[in-house]
Amino acid sequence: MSEILSRPSASAEVLPDGPRVTRSGLATEGVLTTNEEFAAWLGERETTDRMTVERVPLADLKGWHFTEGRASLVHDSGKFFSIRGADVTSTGPGPRAWQQPLIHQPEVGILGLLAKEFGGVLHFLMQAKIEPGNRRQLQLSPTVQATRSNYTKVHGGAAIPYLDHFLPEGRGRVIADVLQSEQGAWFLGKRNRNMVVETTDEIEVRDNFRWLTYGQIRRLLAVPNLVNMDSRTVLACVPIATDGLPDGSDGPLADAPDPEFAAELWHSLRAADADGRHTDAEISAWLNDVRVDTPLAVGPIELTGLREWQVSDDEIAHRQGKHFRIIGVSVRGRREVDAWQQPLLAPVDVGIVAFLTRRIDGVLHVLMRAAVEPGFLDVVELGPTVQCSPATYADAPPERRPRFYDYVLGATDNVRYDVLLSEEGGRFYHAECRYLVVDCGDLPEALEPHPDFRWMTVRQLTAWVQHRNCVNVQARTLLACLNSLW
Amino acid sequence: MSEILSRPSASAEVLPDGPRVTRSGLATEGVLTTNEEFAAWLGERETTDRMTVERVPLADLKGWHFTEGRASLVHDSGKFFSIRGADVTSTGPGPRAWQQPLIHQPEVGILGLLAKEFGGVLHFLMQAKIEPGNRRQLQLSPTVQATRSNYTKVHGGAAIPYLDHFLPEGRGRVIADVLQSEQGAWFLGKRNRNMVVETTDEIEVRDNFRWLTYGQIRRLLAVPNLVNMDSRTVLACVPIATDGLPDGSDGPLADAPDPEFAAELWHSLRAADADGRHTDAEISAWLNDVRVDTPLAVGPIELTGLREWQVSDDEIAHRQGKHFRIIGVSVRGRREVDAWQQPLLAPVDVGIVAFLTRRIDGVLHVLMRAAVEPGFLDVVELGPTVQCSPATYADAPPERRPRFYDYVLGATDNVRYDVLLSEEGGRFYHAECRYLVVDCGDLPEALEPHPDFRWMTVRQLTAWVQHRNCVNVQARTLLACLNSLW
Repeated sequence: MSEILSRPSASAEVLPDGPRVTRSGLATEGVLTTNEEFAAWLGERETTDRMTVERVPLADLKGWHFTEGRASLVHDSGKFFSIRGADVTSTGPGPRAWQQPLIHQPEVGILGLLAKEFGGVLHFLMQAKIEPGNRRQLQLSPTVQATRSNYTKVHGGAAIPYLDHFLPEGRGRVIADVLQSEQGAWFLGKRNRNMVVETTDEIEVRDNFRWLTYGQIRRLLAVPNLVNMDSRTVLACVPIATDGLPDGSDGPLADAPDPEFAAELWHSLRAADADGRHTDAEISAWLNDVRVDTPLAVGPIELTGLREWQVSDDEIAHRQGKHFRIIGVSVRGRREVDAWQQPLLAPVDVGIVAFLTRRIDGVLHVLMRAAVEPGFLDVVELGPTVQCSPATYADAPPERRPRFYDYVLGATDNVRYDVLLSEEGGRFYHAECRYLVVDCGDLPEALEPHPDFRWMTVRQLTAWVQHRNCVNVQARTLLACLNSLW
Repeated sequence: MSEILSRPSASAEVLPDGPRVTRSGLATEGVLTTNEEFAAWLGERETTDRMTVERVPLADLKGWHFTEGRASLVHDSGKFFSIRGADVTSTGPGPRAWQQPLIHQPEVGILGLLAKEFGGVLHFLMQAKIEPGNRRQLQLSPTVQATRSNYTKVHGGAAIPYLDHFLPEGRGRVIADVLQSEQGAWFLGKRNRNMVVETTDEIEVRDNFRWLTYGQIRRLLAVPNLVNMDSRTVLACVPIATDGLPDGSDGPLADAPDPEFAAELWHSLRAADADGRHTDAEISAWLNDVRVDTPLAVGPIELTGLREWQVSDDEIAHRQGKHFRIIGVSVRGRREVDAWQQPLLAPVDVGIVAFLTRRIDGVLHVLMRAAVEPGFLDVVELGPTVQCSPATYADAPPERRPRFYDYVLGATDNVRYDVLLSEEGGRFYHAECRYLVVDCGDLPEALEPHPDFRWMTVRQLTAWVQHRNCVNVQARTLLACLNSLW
């Protein structure tokens, strides 16, 4: 690594982070690591880093036990995470009530991406990381991916490389630090700090880490199941601005997948406040209306008391085979010490998650939905246009299916992005979603006023992500994916 | 009122809200209502609108009762609000634990300010409103000040004038809509929607309402106990921008209380991101550090189980006479129907709330403190430099008193603002704070790094207020007061 670390930073000017990140985003061929070197390294990691994952009945999981009467499934330390029942009631108009298991993990973890300038271009230290739940085991993760139990060593384990760069004492310049929710239908109150920190220290690059430009990373979002969920959510929090670039770059790259759409994205990223269909105050009012009209109460309940769910020694499953199951796995890595057992949440099918886009007064907008999920801190967050598990609607008539669901599944030549990506492999088993960006042109119903939907510019969405608990994890993934298209 | 309503709006240009509000802020002499007319109207209201308020033992309050064993004090409807015990534990470094009564009111109310242009200048419809807890009973409130129980008629009462302008069906253009906390040391999880809505409808002006410019309202903040808490927090959410003014106004008014300080405020309101001592991402990281290191657990406890508090038929009081008491009052207005009884929280003394300001690299900054209060949604919010009840520190040695407390109390010719203002008179009895802005010049310790404090520009603070639960109610009041000084 020594020849890499000896390259001096050539940047003397001081630019705001937005244009600096965008400049790194234009370096799709790489600066420090070429795409060819990256591919060779990734192939090598894929042959060396493997885990064996085998099913184990929940009742037999080492280090875990059901509490009395199978009320909940907990770690022997009482920390880490647990599986509990939730009784959900919405007392607003059209009241709904349901019960379900949720992963309870009330700690705040860190998803940290380390940044450093090489040759005047920001680079990000990406990790090749294997997770037991991933179908494609090895994926690209941020520099640090640590629960609080992890980094305070509740359940043993080795020190976490590069963690110090994200803790107060050893921290460099903070580029982003936002508390974000994760799947609110699967987690109760789970949040992670999404951090991007720039260092000027000499950094030793370990075997399973590589410095990549933002351009390299965002283009890798075209590869199925490669950029993991934790990377995608942190990438969504990286500030991006397509104005203020110093070297006259006034548009996206000519080699973008669809140059015309790329130019529209680039334009929407610099849209003025007045170019949006709604002001930020109007978006805020819309979310507050939902908060006031849809108060959600989430109360604890024993797992065995859950209507519609069956708890056995083996697993926790929905009686109609919908939603997900909670299963147990035994994990073994290369070394003897890399062995543990844990529960995972296994969705029953591949999710569908989509953004609709269209031009409004010449500016590309994205159709956001008010997503209400029981695990959220504050009832509602901005979600993708469509987000669902197809199994839930397998036997539903068209009018009961989510708005635009059939439209998205039937889209063909107006699909701008369509890639299978994995959710967190440390908590979920083979959880994958098909992420789509569909440009709906002048589809008339897309402009019909609807209480659950609002159009926003890409710049607005980019700004809202900087504030805690405003944009859900699926929409953050899609924002990262949108930025793979310029 | 007819001659007022027939004045046409002269404004044809479309300006963003920030400069429009600022232009209204420069109209300190009034446009529609002169200051003289306002003073006459206010005097008239003060002679006609009065309430008689008498102490009643808590156990005798009509419409209220202690639950079994005096566990809590509740409204007979089970709604409205209640007084409950809270057991507070902080599990972070230097753990602290205490118990106290809190006002429990888990609904979201509306503080709504109606705006309309007259003569090309934005006006705001202010209400002369009497509240039982105010020492100066009649104060200026926003157009609408309604709990959800209020406007859904849980405890009877008349229809709320102008409410429709703030509900989804009748709403005009939203200028601001932010969910904000209130006193986190007195309320558990209380939040109000702070709304500013612009209408173009013809508005009938009722006797106890008047249209004022932002300039008139902000200058009234120099008058003790006149602009009520609800007005101050909504005013803090009104967007202000001192750039982009169309008519060449490039500075504050010559008649500002301190023209030099006014010019510095005006400059700080247009400070670029790079002019701040810290970036917004660094401020966010600081608050997240506090959230992670100071997890607060707030659990329910019976009132009679509270250590250090005495519950009697008459009142709930701290055994050492600190903090506050919960008392009962009987209220009678002019008419027979304007009579009710309710509990109120009576602080034992006048609070001290202060901003320190100073120039950093030529730009005026405000010293913000990470305020951790049990009633907050998310542990911590940006608070004033100093915020405390002097009684708490009456017998404490200097080193145990809050940082800058002695400095603020000893300040003389560097005091830019020093006015007694009331807290909410519908829940608090004679609750007043002395609000101060003290310019600390080059006081050396003010620049010393401290984990609880960060310097921010006025523009940064103005932007952070637009996001829910980021700035506490005392700091919002002081932000409104700062804007009374240009």
